[in-house]
Amino acid sequence: MRIGILGGGQLARMLTLAGYPMGIHTLCIDPAKDVCATDVTKVVHANYGDQTQLKAFADQVDVITFETENIPLETAEFVSQLKPFYPSISALKICQDRLLEKNLFKELNIPTPQFAAINSLAELEQAVAQIKLPAVLKTRRFGYDGKGQAVLKQVSDLASAWEMLGGQALILEQFMRFDLELSLIAVREKNGNVQFYPLVENQHQHGILRLSMAPFADKTLQQLAEHYVQTILTKLNYVGTFVIELFQIGQQLFANEMAPRVHNSGHWTIEGASTSQFANHLRAISGLPLGSTAVQEYNAMFNIIGEEPDMQKILNIPAAHYHTYEKQAKPNRKLGHITITASDKIIYQQGLQQLKRLLDLN
Amino acid sequence: MRIGILGGGQLARMLTLAGYPMGIHTLCIDPAKDVCATDVTKVVHANYGDQTQLKAFADQVDVITFETENIPLETAEFVSQLKPFYPSISALKICQDRLLEKNLFKELNIPTPQFAAINSLAELEQAVAQIKLPAVLKTRRFGYDGKGQAVLKQVSDLASAWEMLGGQALILEQFMRFDLELSLIAVREKNGNVQFYPLVENQHQHGILRLSMAPFADKTLQQLAEHYVQTILTKLNYVGTFVIELFQIGQQLFANEMAPRVHNSGHWTIEGASTSQFANHLRAISGLPLGSTAVQEYNAMFNIIGEEPDMQKILNIPAAHYHTYEKQAKPNRKLGHITITASDKIIYQQGLQQLKRLLDLN
Repeated sequence: MRIGILGGGQLARMLTLAGYPMGIHTLCIDPAKDVCATDVTKVVHANYGDQTQLKAFADQVDVITFETENIPLETAEFVSQLKPFYPSISALKICQDRLLEKNLFKELNIPTPQFAAINSLAELEQAVAQIKLPAVLKTRRFGYDGKGQAVLKQVSDLASAWEMLGGQALILEQFMRFDLELSLIAVREKNGNVQFYPLVENQHQHGILRLSMAPFADKTLQQLAEHYVQTILTKLNYVGTFVIELFQIGQQLFANEMAPRVHNSGHWTIEGASTSQFANHLRAISGLPLGSTAVQEYNAMFNIIGEEPDMQKILNIPAAHYHTYEKQAKPNRKLGHITITASDKIIYQQGLQQLKRLLDLN
Repeated sequence: MRIGILGGGQLARMLTLAGYPMGIHTLCIDPAKDVCATDVTKVVHANYGDQTQLKAFADQVDVITFETENIPLETAEFVSQLKPFYPSISALKICQDRLLEKNLFKELNIPTPQFAAINSLAELEQAVAQIKLPAVLKTRRFGYDGKGQAVLKQVSDLASAWEMLGGQALILEQFMRFDLELSLIAVREKNGNVQFYPLVENQHQHGILRLSMAPFADKTLQQLAEHYVQTILTKLNYVGTFVIELFQIGQQLFANEMAPRVHNSGHWTIEGASTSQFANHLRAISGLPLGSTAVQEYNAMFNIIGEEPDMQKILNIPAAHYHTYEKQAKPNRKLGHITITASDKIIYQQGLQQLKRLLDLN
């Protein structure tokens, strides 16, 4: 079995590593040079518009998936006519556009911050009057790691935000004062069988995920989140790994965004779950049964951002595992992650403290 | 960091996969064509006597190790002069020869079945008179999976066994009626720090390991086995993963054999331990600190021998993980393994039963 992956970054790298034990091989295609999946699998270096290369790529694989929703929809549509393509084009299309996402949440009665489509400064002013400040102005497409966003605190922020982001399709969203940011990762087989991982608590820094901790053990919220995700997966007839990011306010959950792929907040599942989000994605899209999503008692995942720490020191923490993506260092770039996994609370907490000290985190 | 591995079979394959997350790459060398590490790393196809190729191989790596003790000692000696070589040449030399192994056990006061070196039929007759029947005649070198062995039950078996095995260095060993076969896997850092995995219970079929189960929870035996292994590792100033196979009779342990490498009875550590035997071997020989050897409550590993079962059916067992080595099927050949890992006893036992049914095992 060979899986074609649109994109050759760290998610493709980790998908590839999860595949080998099952005899599942990958082939990636990416317009960027020297992407980090190159170390572990073959990556075709080609433009997403190059149909000759896309066809040759599709010819070599049995199934096609993607590691990022930031690929041209036309590329996905083109290859989906050549080989089975999971998750679906319609799931990809919705997840590429914050407005379509929010409309889906609304349609499915999943609470979400108030929002409005914005195509002009006048529309922005109108929407602000209704949604009230603070609010967040976001590009509808291609945003990630806090990019393409501006927080509006006072009326005078509108013009500068418009200056920065105007000219592309935008969305204004209510700024929610949430208690915590959570995410739920799920995976669905072709036959409709769904497995959920436990809720994850996420902490961001400068708009980039810094720390994930799981399980976030709250049965009521887990059930609520599973219910929301189940509704979406059924609606989309989804196949593969899926994530929803949620704002938690007391016993309420508000859908912030979703992604039709393996997710940064699920990297701890490599060590922390019986079957990782990567292995389960491959199983789902290959038509294999899903593996158990039972997890270790205590799991944390730290992103390595901007520069890599001394692996030697990190691995001195007994419960720590180091994942480098072997990428060139660059400010704000995700270069790897570190997992702390333990069944013993003391070992976990000590590991977490040691790691925070080593990484200069508070 | 790049590790050179003498041998390109499944152990090299699994070492390679364990290395990528840490940015540790491998390069293998193997005289056989189409070995199964080829799928996941670069394998140099060369004769072990080809010093030009060995030199070119050594030039490309930082550290050299091996995946099998059945390599020419001269090859190991040659490359060990070019790059750091772990575990040591002396450990390799001893583990290549059952007589040297047994002498080491004796020297270190580790109980082992009675034995005698055999170089002629007369010596065999003499040794049988002393050790008594039943006994096992084995080649001192290159034996594995029950190959190069003959069980002697009655005096009339001597001539035929000599006929079959004579002409090479042999050893006669007392045939022990043991309760169970156990193994202990350990890993030692350069600074002397040692981590032990829990004892594993092993079941063989036709001389080939079929099923391993861990932990074999017996504190007294665990301590005893750790004491024996610690003695050996200290004596050999060992670096890397090590295994000892033991016969258990009540509260006694008898050393059967040892191996200076990752071991088939430790494959369950990929899913079942915080750090696998493969990752820890790489950490040890790369000078990185060892990872935790804490394990899941229930772990079993079945070897896939001769032909591969339907992966689809196997993965229907929730706690099952499938590892194919992508090797050509051949009678008695190890083609992969299946792990059942769970923290829940019922899930584990049900998984084990389902798997035994699927594999036609009793």
